[in-house]
Amino acid sequence: MAELQETPLDQRYFEDYLEGAVVECGTVAVDEHEVIEFGRRFDPQPFHCDPAAAARGPFGGVIASGWHTAGLMMRLFVARYISSVASLGSPGAEELKWPLPVRPGDVLRVRVSVLESRRSRSRPDRGLVRSLIEVFNQRQELVMSMRVLNFLRCRTDNPPQ
Amino acid sequence: MAELQETPLDQRYFEDYLEGAVVECGTVAVDEHEVIEFGRRFDPQPFHCDPAAAARGPFGGVIASGWHTAGLMMRLFVARYISSVASLGSPGAEELKWPLPVRPGDVLRVRVSVLESRRSRSRPDRGLVRSLIEVFNQRQELVMSMRVLNFLRCRTDNPPQ
Repeated sequence: MAELQETPLDQRYFEDYLEGAVVECGTVAVDEHEVIEFGRRFDPQPFHCDPAAAARGPFGGVIASGWHTAGLMMRLFVARYISSVASLGSPGAEELKWPLPVRPGDVLRVRVSVLESRRSRSRPDRGLVRSLIEVFNQRQELVMSMRVLNFLRCRTDNPPQ
Repeated sequence: MAELQETPLDQRYFEDYLEGAVVECGTVAVDEHEVIEFGRRFDPQPFHCDPAAAARGPFGGVIASGWHTAGLMMRLFVARYISSVASLGSPGAEELKWPLPVRPGDVLRVRVSVLESRRSRSRPDRGLVRSLIEVFNQRQELVMSMRVLNFLRCRTDNPPQ
């Protein structure tokens, strides 16, 4: 079977997400204007959206809302990891961590690893994939991680005997 | 001590987040245009940002990205729960769940409960508050929940003896 990373997004199904597979999802630059705009809209704490207050605050400058970091991560997760034809959404995630601040000018890199993949017994047309998502900055420091669950449609309705 | 909900945001410190306190954070309507715009930007799966494809897809229509729901929740969390003067950010969250889809036209309500509050031993100027966040729709169905950690500055540097 081809490596997950080599399989086009529109040909990936549950069966392709094998435990141990690792996908490098690329990078995204963190733009100050976007950090402030996102902060004002969704997380208007001074250290996310007010540069003057942020400079005097606990982080010594503006940092990205953790939800903005999650959004930037998700864009790469959709662009490089999750199937474009078989994704059936997510029931949730475990251990969402933001160990270090994300600052304007940072360049984030996303890596996703398949931790577990399990075909549904009650609905054999789908399976559940548990993935570790890790986000690193340009100094290779971990700035976000989580374990996410995704439902994915199977390529074949009949599981291998 | 005054109820947490009655204490103005700019007078809330770690000491005010007592275990068992519950804060109703108000409601927010889910706008279709915003759902699609957020989806296109951060989570461009067909069921978040393409109404025609979404109608044929697993949810029978467009649903909000779970990260958009988190952003809408966060706006109310900042408006009604977290101190505007003592917040020192969050190291993460546990058990993020999206049990039911959020659809355009839904009206979401956010409730936050203090699960645990613990003064830091190593840094006595702050404490860690663990809170349960619950998001309900207009049918009182739970659509998102999580347990979040927040660092908060203490009002007094000297813990009570």
